[in-house]
Amino acid sequence: MAFRSGLLTMETSRLETFADGVFAIAATLLIIDVSVHAPGAELGAALKHSWPQYAAYAVSFLIIGIWWVNHHASMAVIDRVDRTLLFATIAMLACIAFLPFPTRLVAEHFRDDGVRAAAVTYGLTMTTAAICFALSWFYAARGRRLIAQTADQGVVSAISRSVIPGVPINAAATLVAVWSPYTGLVLFAALALFYVVGSSLFGRD
Amino acid sequence: MAFRSGLLTMETSRLETFADGVFAIAATLLIIDVSVHAPGAELGAALKHSWPQYAAYAVSFLIIGIWWVNHHASMAVIDRVDRTLLFATIAMLACIAFLPFPTRLVAEHFRDDGVRAAAVTYGLTMTTAAICFALSWFYAARGRRLIAQTADQGVVSAISRSVIPGVPINAAATLVAVWSPYTGLVLFAALALFYVVGSSLFGRD
Amino acid sequence: MAFRSGLLTMETSRLETFADGVFAIAATLLIIDVSVHAPGAELGAALKHSWPQYAAYAVSFLIIGIWWVNHHASMAVIDRVDRTLLFATIAMLACIAFLPFPTRLVAEHFRDDGVRAAAVTYGLTMTTAAICFALSWFYAARGRRLIAQTADQGVVSAISRSVIPGVPINAAATLVAVWSPYTGLVLFAALALFYVVGSSLFGRD
Amino acid sequence: MAFRSGLLTMETSRLETFADGVFAIAATLLIIDVSVHAPGAELGAALKHSWPQYAAYAVSFLIIGIWWVNHHASMAVIDRVDRTLLFATIAMLACIAFLPFPTRLVAEHFRDDGVRAAAVTYGLTMTTAAICFALSWFYAARGRRLIAQTADQGVVSAISRSVIPGVPINAAATLVAVWSPYTGLVLFAALALFYVVGSSLFGRD
Repeated sequence: MAFRSGLLTMETSRLETFADGVFAIAATLLIIDVSVHAPGAELGAALKHSWPQYAAYAVSFLIIGIWWVNHHASMAVIDRVDRTLLFATIAMLACIAFLPFPTRLVAEHFRDDGVRAAAVTYGLTMTTAAICFALSWFYAARGRRLIAQTADQGVVSAISRSVIPGVPINAAATLVAVWSPYTGLVLFAALALFYVVGSSLFGRD
Repeated sequence: MAFRSGLLTMETSRLETFADGVFAIAATLLIIDVSVHAPGAELGAALKHSWPQYAAYAVSFLIIGIWWVNHHASMAVIDRVDRTLLFATIAMLACIAFLPFPTRLVAEHFRDDGVRAAAVTYGLTMTTAAICFALSWFYAARGRRLIAQTADQGVVSAISRSVIPGVPINAAATLVAVWSPYTGLVLFAALALFYVVGSSLFGRD
Repeated sequence: MAFRSGLLTMETSRLETFADGVFAIAATLLIIDVSVHAPGAELGAALKHSWPQYAAYAVSFLIIGIWWVNHHASMAVIDRVDRTLLFATIAMLACIAFLPFPTRLVAEHFRDDGVRAAAVTYGLTMTTAAICFALSWFYAARGRRLIAQTADQGVVSAISRSVIPGVPINAAATLVAVWSPYTGLVLFAALALFYVVGSSLFGRD
Repeated sequence: MAFRSGLLTMETSRLETFADGVFAIAATLLIIDVSVHAPGAELGAALKHSWPQYAAYAVSFLIIGIWWVNHHASMAVIDRVDRTLLFATIAMLACIAFLPFPTRLVAEHFRDDGVRAAAVTYGLTMTTAAICFALSWFYAARGRRLIAQTADQGVVSAISRSVIPGVPINAAATLVAVWSPYTGLVLFAALALFYVVGSSLFGRD
């Protein structure tokens, strides 16, 4: 809260390093919320019974990894950062760093009536992150405002085409979670796995 | 606690990397303190009732992001680090890394009598951070002690003019929080939003 | 969950930086789970009695350090990243970042009947990490798919020979832990120490 | 636990980045242990009464900052990393990352009989860190084993002279803490402040 604008000198590499840090920390912090407390003799059974915690950990870790990959793909064609992109990115990172909270809610309430509220919170977090990401991308890409001169327009258009469905897909999965929390949660996991397996299986890279 | 002085060889990029780490970790750790515990059936209501926690998370995340931006703006014209700048920066980082604590206090006591003490603690943390930042900046800028030869004096003066109000503004908001905690808290949020929206809206970058 | 494949542009240095972050954070987070609570007068005795916590901390910190070293050794001969390597690495990192959880279980249940389940969970985590690492290495090394042209084939083959025993060794130690938890735990510690001391003593670097 | 030795290719910059991460995370994690719980009306008084927590936070944050500075000073003249230096550094980092635990003990037991055990634990952690640092430095410096050819021998000798007192000073302060915990704690704080203020006041950089 100190500087006038007009003084900003931020290289894209700085923003990427900061974002890398937030992605890595948010993913690694997920483990803090995994906990199983049981008397010694019952620990084995309690550990098996707690599989929703490990599943929630794995899915959220993977989702954060996917976002990290996508963020880099977008930054690879951007070569300038202005304040709007900066704060849209910080808003997106605040959503990603928020994910450990709904992850914990889902793991904790997987077997009680709270699962609906937990799944919807999870979905709203993902949808808000997708909105922030879409805003920051289209702000940068519109008229190639912040796009590197050397970046191929085909790549830029392809990124745009792939960013567009992010918001409706996440919003739809959230709506499904309102109606059926477990279906919504399975959808979020399936979307992440589909993203990984699909792109690997078909060897499109 | 081992070396004599005179041996210090610290590049500005090293200090920036360390500071980046502290900023990113402090922001991401904020989520640990967001927690809602309720029996399953009441989770939805409890999540809605807990909005001060999300607001506190969002404002503190944004404030840490702003400090990160400002720190980089100042480091962009500094090209040498000496021990005084180093430890003034470490003191500033200790204040920023402290912010999750008053954030948690505000979220926890938002609806009870503790809100005054929480808001004042928040304000004192911000004010101390601003003092450390002003000291480190003016130490570096005075007589261009640590300023890069290539740095434009107009930019240096502009940074100085913008650093000056940081301490009185934060101190004033803290004093307001003594008198009216909620007004003080709204002020801290408004200052952060004004910083972001103002600079984006007027497109001064 | 936003981009089509075919757009991926990820330098190995980016993946290394992200992995570095996860390794450093996972190791440093281990301390959060070390806790000794006792009335003042009994603190000294309680601290001595809690040595399994410090031992678990030290062994897991060392193991994460060893994985960090090995990951760099493998990345040193890899000069391209594709989506399969990326997600195999993210899976491996998810296992490493999971380690604080079984570490906490072992420390907590070291003196009760839960030690078996805790030690087996520890072993399964290590074995899964080893599987992910082997998959990612052999995917990259097969036919030198992602290996740098300048990389010596002798070095690549030596890495392959050393990656192979990782899975059976960790699986064997896990099986031992099923039969005798303490023997299994001592094995994990001994393997880590042997790795460090062995390579130092014989000065093979 | 996978590679044979002889394959290690680790640049000093990689080790510095990993160490930077551990230093930054350990310092920032200190805030997790600062907590004040009181009914709203008593929060102000409880916050004032909790000053040992803030003092412990500030001193440990500063000490970690000082270690970070010293580690860089030593790495600035080292240009090769072998396995011995690597694992001696990891052991030193494990001690630094351990510091949040005794910091928490000191803050928690500052006003009860546990302060002696807490202060001694703090001192033992610092002394062990100093031993690891001395071992790693003298291993690297002996016969200029890992020292850059371009490094001035005067600088190397000066670092050696300044590393030597680290172990006895920390051990002495620990012994003082056995006899008088508060004197020991004041000594640790005074040593850190002396390091900072001394080097700044006399402008020896």
